[in-house]
Amino acid sequence: MSDRERKPRFQRRGGNKPFDKGGPGGRRPIWQDRDHDGPVVLYGWHTVTLALQNPKRRFKKLILTENAARRLAEENIATRIAPEIVRPSEIDRLLTPDAVHQGLLAEADPLPSPDIETLDLKGLVLVLDQITDPHNVGAILRSAAAFAVKAIVTTARHSPEATGVLAKAASGALELVPIVTVQNLARALTGLNERGFMTVGLDSAGAENLSAIALKEPLALVLGAEGKGLRQLTRETCSAVARLDMPGEIKSLNVSNAAVLALYVGATRLGLMT
Amino acid sequence: MSDRERKPRFQRRGGNKPFDKGGPGGRRPIWQDRDHDGPVVLYGWHTVTLALQNPKRRFKKLILTENAARRLAEENIATRIAPEIVRPSEIDRLLTPDAVHQGLLAEADPLPSPDIETLDLKGLVLVLDQITDPHNVGAILRSAAAFAVKAIVTTARHSPEATGVLAKAASGALELVPIVTVQNLARALTGLNERGFMTVGLDSAGAENLSAIALKEPLALVLGAEGKGLRQLTRETCSAVARLDMPGEIKSLNVSNAAVLALYVGATRLGLMT
Repeated sequence: MSDRERKPRFQRRGGNKPFDKGGPGGRRPIWQDRDHDGPVVLYGWHTVTLALQNPKRRFKKLILTENAARRLAEENIATRIAPEIVRPSEIDRLLTPDAVHQGLLAEADPLPSPDIETLDLKGLVLVLDQITDPHNVGAILRSAAAFAVKAIVTTARHSPEATGVLAKAASGALELVPIVTVQNLARALTGLNERGFMTVGLDSAGAENLSAIALKEPLALVLGAEGKGLRQLTRETCSAVARLDMPGEIKSLNVSNAAVLALYVGATRLGLMT
Repeated sequence: MSDRERKPRFQRRGGNKPFDKGGPGGRRPIWQDRDHDGPVVLYGWHTVTLALQNPKRRFKKLILTENAARRLAEENIATRIAPEIVRPSEIDRLLTPDAVHQGLLAEADPLPSPDIETLDLKGLVLVLDQITDPHNVGAILRSAAAFAVKAIVTTARHSPEATGVLAKAASGALELVPIVTVQNLARALTGLNERGFMTVGLDSAGAENLSAIALKEPLALVLGAEGKGLRQLTRETCSAVARLDMPGEIKSLNVSNAAVLALYVGATRLGLMT
């Protein structure tokens, strides 16, 4: 578990913010404890512009600075709904102090989660076993989009919502990589196995070396949380459990770093890199 | 720039904490605005135990929970100085709410920065051009230790201190990979070039493909901050500027993810992986 695995950091001191749940006790922006079907918050240039260009994304609110509105117009990106034009400090007020919003903030519906049985029998899929840190999951999504991953499979519980810092770290990848949410990961993996997927769990103590085993399409790479690793039932359900051999003294990586290496090795071995 | 590039998050509400700078106005732990020669703060199992096993590390203070003290004894790790035994909540109080300290917190002197001219003319070196986010730099250090990187070269200014969240994200790598701090990065790169290093800057718009160019030892891989990328003078001083080709729609990765991929490609091409 990294030092950021424990909880999201949206606590703020202020009182009623426009995105608050409302009520005198409300101290958190709405997206911290929203229900699963509630709106999501997107901010930052890549995150918002890729969402604006995704016809499946339904917007409820769009807040822009004048500069951001001008830049969107220059790049011919339609705003889809009438934006509210505000000063940058207005957007600052709605986010944590370290959030780099670049003048764009949107509230939108979450994207639909495809059914796992609709996954194409080709290419690469990434499976996340209770990885909870939204920065790590966001970075993993971004890398997944860079490696043309077909879908991310994740658990309904113990996974962060696709909003806020996760969406920002994903840098627009939420619009490119479908997220398949399942109730029971072992059952989902069994289904993938039955449909012909090779399911490979990554574990620094894995019996095999990822670079040395014969990988085949469709391939699902399965990653566990830092510290905890893969849950036992997850591990047992994978068709193989492999490690990434490295020459140095530290044998385990940050989970998003492990993910991108596994994607690179997987994509290279499947011939997807050309 | 990622959403975490802007500033460290050590603001706290409380008053005088033992690690505060003191004074009634002090609201931040000492390591946020410490001078460069001040003590560093290490917490978490890997971070503290690898420091305890590094003879070069000089400890000023060691705070442990009973459980952590017992575990150190069981694993035959000497505490070096007499520890203060406290309840976990005492350590919680000294750190941000999301810091996972696992019952260990130490205050120690920073490690000495070796002179860049003492770098061995072999293997891999990583050069960071003003990457400011401590989580990313910590994750990069951890990956550097995993790939047996000989040293990290970084700028004295616009780089985070090797303490706190950076040390935690590095997971002990601070004890394994020397950090060479330089005043002027372009001059440092010129020196490396003159000493026979191949210096390769990474840039998503680079003219060459990292996987396709002939890499040779000693190799320095140079990474810029997200968003800003390599500074112009840095780019001009590198012997080559290369991109990482990826098959998906997103063409740039989180900087620590880009770093680990570059290390993997570099280490593989130099024959360091066996």
